[in-house]
Amino acid sequence: MRTGIATVCLSGTLKEKMQACAIAGFDGIEIFEQDLVTSPLSPEDVRKMAADLGLGLDLYQPFRDFDGVTPDLLKANLRRAEAKFGLMSRLGMDTILVCSNVATATIDDDGLRASQLAQLAGLAGDHGIKVAYEALAWGKHVNDYEHAYRLVEMVDHPNLGTCLDSFHILSRDWDTAPIEQINADKIFFVQVADAPKLSMDVLSWSRHYRVFPGEGQFELAKFMGHVVRAGYTGPVSLEVFNDVFRQSDVERTAVDAMRSLIWLEEQSAKWLAATDAEGAGGAALRRRYPMELATLPKVNEPAGFNFAEVKADDTAQLEKLLGQLGFAFQGRHRTKDVQLWTMGQARVIINEQAALHTEPAIAALGFDVDSPVIASARAQQLKAPVVARKVQADEEVFQGIAAPDSTEIFLCQGSPDGTAAWTREFGEGLEHPSSGASAVIDHVNLAQPWQHFDEAVLFYTSALALEPQPFAEVPSPSGLVRSQVMQTSDGAVRLVLNLAPVQQAQSEVRQTYQEHIAFAVEDLVATAREARRRGLEFLQIPANYYEDLDARFDLEPGFLATLRELNLLYDRDADGEFLHFYTATVGSVFFEMVERRGNYDGYGAPNAPVRHAVQYDSLHRP
Amino acid sequence: MRTGIATVCLSGTLKEKMQACAIAGFDGIEIFEQDLVTSPLSPEDVRKMAADLGLGLDLYQPFRDFDGVTPDLLKANLRRAEAKFGLMSRLGMDTILVCSNVATATIDDDGLRASQLAQLAGLAGDHGIKVAYEALAWGKHVNDYEHAYRLVEMVDHPNLGTCLDSFHILSRDWDTAPIEQINADKIFFVQVADAPKLSMDVLSWSRHYRVFPGEGQFELAKFMGHVVRAGYTGPVSLEVFNDVFRQSDVERTAVDAMRSLIWLEEQSAKWLAATDAEGAGGAALRRRYPMELATLPKVNEPAGFNFAEVKADDTAQLEKLLGQLGFAFQGRHRTKDVQLWTMGQARVIINEQAALHTEPAIAALGFDVDSPVIASARAQQLKAPVVARKVQADEEVFQGIAAPDSTEIFLCQGSPDGTAAWTREFGEGLEHPSSGASAVIDHVNLAQPWQHFDEAVLFYTSALALEPQPFAEVPSPSGLVRSQVMQTSDGAVRLVLNLAPVQQAQSEVRQTYQEHIAFAVEDLVATAREARRRGLEFLQIPANYYEDLDARFDLEPGFLATLRELNLLYDRDADGEFLHFYTATVGSVFFEMVERRGNYDGYGAPNAPVRHAVQYDSLHRP
Repeated sequence: MRTGIATVCLSGTLKEKMQACAIAGFDGIEIFEQDLVTSPLSPEDVRKMAADLGLGLDLYQPFRDFDGVTPDLLKANLRRAEAKFGLMSRLGMDTILVCSNVATATIDDDGLRASQLAQLAGLAGDHGIKVAYEALAWGKHVNDYEHAYRLVEMVDHPNLGTCLDSFHILSRDWDTAPIEQINADKIFFVQVADAPKLSMDVLSWSRHYRVFPGEGQFELAKFMGHVVRAGYTGPVSLEVFNDVFRQSDVERTAVDAMRSLIWLEEQSAKWLAATDAEGAGGAALRRRYPMELATLPKVNEPAGFNFAEVKADDTAQLEKLLGQLGFAFQGRHRTKDVQLWTMGQARVIINEQAALHTEPAIAALGFDVDSPVIASARAQQLKAPVVARKVQADEEVFQGIAAPDSTEIFLCQGSPDGTAAWTREFGEGLEHPSSGASAVIDHVNLAQPWQHFDEAVLFYTSALALEPQPFAEVPSPSGLVRSQVMQTSDGAVRLVLNLAPVQQAQSEVRQTYQEHIAFAVEDLVATAREARRRGLEFLQIPANYYEDLDARFDLEPGFLATLRELNLLYDRDADGEFLHFYTATVGSVFFEMVERRGNYDGYGAPNAPVRHAVQYDSLHRP
Repeated sequence: MRTGIATVCLSGTLKEKMQACAIAGFDGIEIFEQDLVTSPLSPEDVRKMAADLGLGLDLYQPFRDFDGVTPDLLKANLRRAEAKFGLMSRLGMDTILVCSNVATATIDDDGLRASQLAQLAGLAGDHGIKVAYEALAWGKHVNDYEHAYRLVEMVDHPNLGTCLDSFHILSRDWDTAPIEQINADKIFFVQVADAPKLSMDVLSWSRHYRVFPGEGQFELAKFMGHVVRAGYTGPVSLEVFNDVFRQSDVERTAVDAMRSLIWLEEQSAKWLAATDAEGAGGAALRRRYPMELATLPKVNEPAGFNFAEVKADDTAQLEKLLGQLGFAFQGRHRTKDVQLWTMGQARVIINEQAALHTEPAIAALGFDVDSPVIASARAQQLKAPVVARKVQADEEVFQGIAAPDSTEIFLCQGSPDGTAAWTREFGEGLEHPSSGASAVIDHVNLAQPWQHFDEAVLFYTSALALEPQPFAEVPSPSGLVRSQVMQTSDGAVRLVLNLAPVQQAQSEVRQTYQEHIAFAVEDLVATAREARRRGLEFLQIPANYYEDLDARFDLEPGFLATLRELNLLYDRDADGEFLHFYTATVGSVFFEMVERRGNYDGYGAPNAPVRHAVQYDSLHRP
């Protein structure tokens, strides 16, 4: 698949954008006119720079409001087009995007439109230029890709084809199956963008909220599958207008973009295999369609958390909290300054190697995968940065990659009984470290910088095979917190990505970016009583909460008294019940203990505002 | 008018919110349940604190999903209501908001709804509680205020009335005139919120984008006028869900909120006077309606800019730029370290009193008003912070207030001939300082911090009588810049508020928050030639821009050559033409020279991306 990206997706100058696209490994780019007009680079400079960077200049865009106009305006439009064709020759470019008219179209007549497009195609032909005509979702008269293609067929000129853009097609819910009937020679360009499903006017939606494939909710693999079946072999290029990407680091966004296309390529091949009439996949499928679709190392979703790692300059508070929760200290690593604490199969590493003045924080997460080497190869093909750990000859090698928020992700060898071989490197070399209680890591909640939220969703989707769930918004005293659950289908791995309000990111208040690790136990009340006996500092839940809880759930008085006594939170839905409590925060990390009853599958979201408010209050109290 | 605000409008804890509301001068508040549930304050604490702060506790809210349910659910709902009535007694509160059912309403039958609401009203009556029933815009069966009122009439119980909420009514475009027919005794509460007109689903619009009155596009004065005519005298309370306000400084947001109600009170009285059948205003109007509507000192829109003031630690670069543009140095002030520079009636003060290491920046703007004292009194009643300037006995006293971005705004005595008496305090005491060229301040462009953008719109609307125009979005290499023009009807005063992308606010790149002062001259080409002769450093416009300009406008070759030669920018629309150029930036300020031809009323918006790109490039070039 020939990969491309429009310069409008990225921040910076044209030069910075081109450099970033080359670094990320794109085959070509679309020159968005405004980026050229505002650039000090001459067309010849741009041409040379692209050639030096190995970047194709695949599409010049946009040329607007051409068709369905009066004769006077047509004349002015053809003059304008000729100036752009001349410019394209200097750039060494051969394809221009012409969007269906949104503004000046005064005549709704396919015959007239076809005749005007024919004149444009003729002029383009004189300059060796190909015109890719695209139906904008909000085009005044032409807003459907099949309509645009009918016009292309009517004109039947070698220099006129169509451009298929996933946003313009999927935002309008047009059926994508007829794409397969389009003559591939007439598809001059394909643009892809994903988007969250929003109920708003399509123009605002398009201009601000597009995201890279895998970061939204469009069925892009299906769209691309139809395009591949049509026989198209040209560029597949990202055109994503997004308010955040436009102001984020250009090189990083370009890598995020490239990752999305690599992932889309794989997903498209999967969709094709799954829907192939003869049930063929792999090589057979590749033989069937002319577009080359690269494959990625395959991974299944992780079987569970292998461990969580916290770090600090001074680890005393972390040790104290874990001990009070019921974790057992299993000793130090034989060559590194890290401790292992366990409670059943919940393993927590306390890393003492942190730099001076490092407040306690979540540093790394380990996931059980079928094959760490294959999973790591996949992540690296998806351009995840590798993190390395020093190991001695006889120690287990951890395959590590860095998540967008810098959390280190380790891909570990899972085992049928849930144990981890590397624990032998700790303490006395215990084969199966144990403590009294049974526990597992239930979920981990990571705060995401606002610039990297969408990137994180795609990262965990593509590299770790987690599935994004519908997001929630939780009120807190410092703003709404957006909460995005990523999980495996069986719920064995649950990761919650929290997007804190912008002010928190800008705030100088310590510890506002709180993250946590939640452990599931079988008997939360007993766990809480034990923890209290050991002196644990619980997050203090206000009395008002319990009154409201009673008004909502009509709880048995003894049970309510227990909840109140132990600072436990409670939720109930049709599937089951949820009990949980939080510890106080140390540095930027705190812990949660949960008990899931029945098939409760949530996270106690109705209780999140209480948690945020109490944490805020404890930070701001003089 | 009794002023109120819902605690959900503000950031922080319940305690912080209550304090801020009292400081801002609200008469009462609505307790949003979640703020109480998450608070460590007991109901009794809240009651005492409100009493001590002089704040009424006017409404407890929300009570959701009550009506149109099955018998089982009704029983649970009545139990839930009774718990809340008990809580309200402890709070000393007597009114609760019940919203129309959005979720659990299974039966669409007004008879059933009325009978269930009657049971609720009976129970409320036993506890001395009044139920204000409100139609949510997205209510499942009841989403129209007239429908809600019909149910109230059907039940006809002294403890059941309705709540009118401007958002739920105006977002659905319901006719507001029938409000006048509602029995005022049955209107238990009135909530007001403004909003920008957005095409999106009404729930998202409501939850994220509401703003305070005067910051959006709803016809709130008319809405309130109908409410006043109905004979309502109860609280008028803000209920504004806004993502930005929820994370902004609580005291500041409360003041912004209070300003919006004060302004709305005035606008409502104006609307009543304008639409009164007998043409009565003032005292006659006050006698006619029971609600007391306070009045503000009246101001007309300003007649023009009186001056602009820039400041710096080292003012050499500013002096050089102004001199090169054609400004004449008119001397120093006789008692202060400030210089006066003029070009025609464009007056620029260079303030040399800035603190060490202050980069050149816009510090203050003076506006010509009919009466500085009256205008200042108005601004102060609208809670604008006062800024004072030291003056000697015989010097003109400037009435100053601080704008939300800290720019100092001075309300100056205008004069018929456009001169300013205070210029006599400068240099040799020139009555009419003059320079060769004729010029005026055309517009001033101020960068706004994202937290204070809406506040700034209301500030200039209410205190200075400027009118907000539809906003534009301009692409820049570091993101989209939102641009909001505030101007007088004759265009004599034009202020452009720019909202920079969030990253710019967080960026450490110097000078990204650029602001500018634009001067209008009669012959821009001559002005530019003169400036070039004096050695002015123009903002360098790329050659590509002129090629695009020619493609778009088909310009006369000699004229195009002149534009290119002098780095001039050009725009044209149906009303006229616009020529302009920019200087290089010093500190955070640059200057623009413009020439308006015909009735051109814009700002050369199509050229803004070029300006942003070149400025970005010059900042980021190594």
